Amino acid sequence: MDRNVCIIGGGMSHWGIRQASARDMFQEAGKACFNDIPGLSNKDVDGLIVASAFTERSCFQTHLAPLVAEYLGIKPKNICARVELLCASGSSGIILAYGLIKSGIADVVMITGGEKLFTPQKWEVFYSELGTGDHDWDGSQGLGLPPPFFSMVAQRHMKLYGTTEEQLAMVSVKNRRNGLNNPKGQYQKAITLEEALNARHVVAPLKLFDCCPVTDGAAAVILACEEKAKEYTDKPLVYIKGVGQATVNNMSANMPSMTTWEALKIAGNQAYSKAGVKPSDIDVAQTHDCFTISEIIESEDLGFCEKGEGGLFVQEGRSDYGGDVAINTDGGLLSCGHPFGGTGIRQGIEIMKQLRGDAARQVEGARTGLTHNLSGLSAAHTVLVYGRDI
Amino acid sequence: MDRNVCIIGGGMSHWGIRQASARDMFQEAGKACFNDIPGLSNKDVDGLIVASAFTERSCFQTHLAPLVAEYLGIKPKNICARVELLCASGSSGIILAYGLIKSGIADVVMITGGEKLFTPQKWEVFYSELGTGDHDWDGSQGLGLPPPFFSMVAQRHMKLYGTTEEQLAMVSVKNRRNGLNNPKGQYQKAITLEEALNARHVVAPLKLFDCCPVTDGAAAVILACEEKAKEYTDKPLVYIKGVGQATVNNMSANMPSMTTWEALKIAGNQAYSKAGVKPSDIDVAQTHDCFTISEIIESEDLGFCEKGEGGLFVQEGRSDYGGDVAINTDGGLLSCGHPFGGTGIRQGIEIMKQLRGDAARQVEGARTGLTHNLSGLSAAHTVLVYGRDI
Repeated sequence: MDRNVCIIGGGMSHWGIRQASARDMFQEAGKACFNDIPGLSNKDVDGLIVASAFTERSCFQTHLAPLVAEYLGIKPKNICARVELLCASGSSGIILAYGLIKSGIADVVMITGGEKLFTPQKWEVFYSELGTGDHDWDGSQGLGLPPPFFSMVAQRHMKLYGTTEEQLAMVSVKNRRNGLNNPKGQYQKAITLEEALNARHVVAPLKLFDCCPVTDGAAAVILACEEKAKEYTDKPLVYIKGVGQATVNNMSANMPSMTTWEALKIAGNQAYSKAGVKPSDIDVAQTHDCFTISEIIESEDLGFCEKGEGGLFVQEGRSDYGGDVAINTDGGLLSCGHPFGGTGIRQGIEIMKQLRGDAARQVEGARTGLTHNLSGLSAAHTVLVYGRDI
Repeated sequence: MDRNVCIIGGGMSHWGIRQASARDMFQEAGKACFNDIPGLSNKDVDGLIVASAFTERSCFQTHLAPLVAEYLGIKPKNICARVELLCASGSSGIILAYGLIKSGIADVVMITGGEKLFTPQKWEVFYSELGTGDHDWDGSQGLGLPPPFFSMVAQRHMKLYGTTEEQLAMVSVKNRRNGLNNPKGQYQKAITLEEALNARHVVAPLKLFDCCPVTDGAAAVILACEEKAKEYTDKPLVYIKGVGQATVNNMSANMPSMTTWEALKIAGNQAYSKAGVKPSDIDVAQTHDCFTISEIIESEDLGFCEKGEGGLFVQEGRSDYGGDVAINTDGGLLSCGHPFGGTGIRQGIEIMKQLRGDAARQVEGARTGLTHNLSGLSAAHTVLVYGRDI
C-alpha cells in the first residue's frame, strides 16, 4: 500500500512557565487537537507517538506513551511509543508516523510532544542538559548547554560573512512581532531593535533576546491517510510531501563546519527531492530559531538565500510577510518558547494552518510550506515539506 | 511505494554484568551486526533507530541516537532517533523502521537497543524503575518495580486456573536449557526443577529463577527493502509479515484483567491478520518471559493453547523443541537477561536465525516465527510475525 498522508488537525496547551504537570499539558494539547477535528474521536486513533526529551528526569516518568494514551482515552492497536531526538523529538515523531501511515500499517496517528522543565528538581534538568551533546566530551566541557556553542557559531559567522549584531537582533524583532498573533505562545510582546541590542549578554555576542526561553508546554497533531482524512474533516487537506533527517556528527569537535550545517543541507535536499520542490517553491517556513544566528544559517543552508547572506536576508525583509518566504510566522522558538518535544509539533500546526488558510496571520495564497527542527549541538536536522498539492 | 521488508542481519554484545559503558556495548553490538552482513558497510545505512529506556538517567545521556551513529560511523539521511517504550523499546524500533522502509522513506535501517543498568549511581536506575508504571500512582505504591505486580498476576492465575509452582519452574528450566547454546546471553547454565523450586522467594510465589536478571547489554539488527536485501546478502531472506502494538491501559488499576492480557490479544490479532497467518502456523516464537508466569499467559493469549492451559502447555513439552511451537529458543529473558531496549532486538535476531536455518539450536524446517515484547505493568504489547515466505 502506498498512500498519501495528511495532517488533519492540531492543538497546543498554553506554553510558558506553567504550574501544571506534564500529564496536564499533554491533556490540554490533546483536547485542543481533538477540538480542531470535530468529526474525529479518540476511538478513531490507532496509533500514538509521544515526543519528549527530558521526562525521564524532569518528571521521573519512563514509559510515557501508554500514560499519555490513558489520559487521552486512546487505545492504540498499531503503535504506542515515545520518540526522543532532544529538540527535534517532535518532528522525528511526525516522520515515523508518516511512515506508518504511508505504508498502511496505521491509519490515524496522533503525535504529541512536550516538556516539563520548570520543576523544583532543577538539577535533574541540568543533568539532562549536560547530555545534550556527547555527555563525556562536550558535556564535560560545558558545551552541553547550548548558548556557549551557538555563541561560537555566531562569532564565526560574523567573522566569515560580516553578519552583524543588528542583523541577529532583527530576527528576534521579527519573530516577537509574529508571536503577537499566537495566544498559546510564551510571549505576546513585541520588542524594538533598540531593546534587543541593549539587552544583557547571555554569552557574547548572544544577548537575552537572541536566545529562546525555557518553556513548559505540549502540542499535538493528527496525521491520517488521505481516505480517512476526507472522512474526518471538511477543512482543506494538507499533505506531507517529503521528509529528511540527517546527522553527520554528534560531538561538536567532529562538526565539518560551524557555519555551514552539512546535516541540514542533506536533510533539506532529501525533503526537497522527495517532495519534488525547490527552495523557491516554499511560501512559508518554520525554522529552528533556538538562537537568532540559527535562523540566519538555516535561511542559507535551506537554500532561501546564498551562503553568507542570511544576515542581509532578514535585514531586507525577505524572511518576513511579503518577502521571499515568511519564516516563523507563529513566533518561532524565540517567541513561543521551546518545550523540546513540543517544538516540531508546533511547527507542523502552524504550517498546516497557513496552508489551510486559517492561520492567525495568513501568508496569502500559501500552498507549500516547510518545517526545520534541529537537535543537540546542531548535530541532527529534520526537514519536512508540506503542501496543498500532492 | 509498497515494498517487502527483510531483516538481513543482527548481532549482540555480550550480555551480563559488564564493565563497559553503554557506548562500548552499542559499538560491540553494531560491529557484530555488520559482521553478519559482509556485503554491507556502514555507508549503506540510511537510517538509525536507537532503542533504550533508562539511558537519560543511568548514563546521563540524552540525544543518544546521534551519539551511537557517530560511534558506528553511520551518517543517516532519513532517520536518526531514539525510541522508548521501556522493555518493548526494541520491538517498537523495529516496527517504526519497518514503516519507513515499507513506505519507501528509507532503504536500509539499523535498529540497535540496549541498556547500562549496573552503574555506581544505583538511585538513578531505581528512580527510572519507579516510572515504569504511572509514577504518581503505581510508582508511589511500590508497583513501579515489576516483581510485586507479576507476583499478583501469578497468584491470580494459580487461583483461577490451578497453575502450579512446578509449572512456573518448568518455564525457567526450559529456557535455561535453551540458553546453553547462546554464548552472548547472561547465563549458560542449566538448572534443575528442584533447584528452581528450592530457590529463595523474590516475591511469593515468584522465586529467584522465576525472574529475569538485571543485565547490561546491547543488540542490533538491520532491516532493508527486499531489493537491497538481495544486493547485500546471500543468506535466505526473512520477511516481516505483520506487526501490532497495543495498549488498553497504563495504570495497573485500569487493567481489564490481570490474567487475560487484552492488549496482547489485540496486538497479536493485528499481527496475525496483517501477516495472514494463524497461531498454529507459528513454528518458533520468542515471547517476553520477564517472569515465568508471563510466558505461561502469553502462550494462552497468543493463541498457542486455550485460556488457563498455559501451565499444562509447558508441562507437556508443547513449548519445547518437538512441541507445538518452540518458545524462547535462545534462552529468553530468563537466560539471556534483559537490558530493556535490547530485548526486542535480540528476539528478532533469534527468529531471523531460526528462519534462515542457522540458529545455534535449530527448529527443523521453521518457516514462520513470532516475537512478543511487553512493557510496563503488562501495559503495552508488541507482536511481530516473520516469515521465509511473504
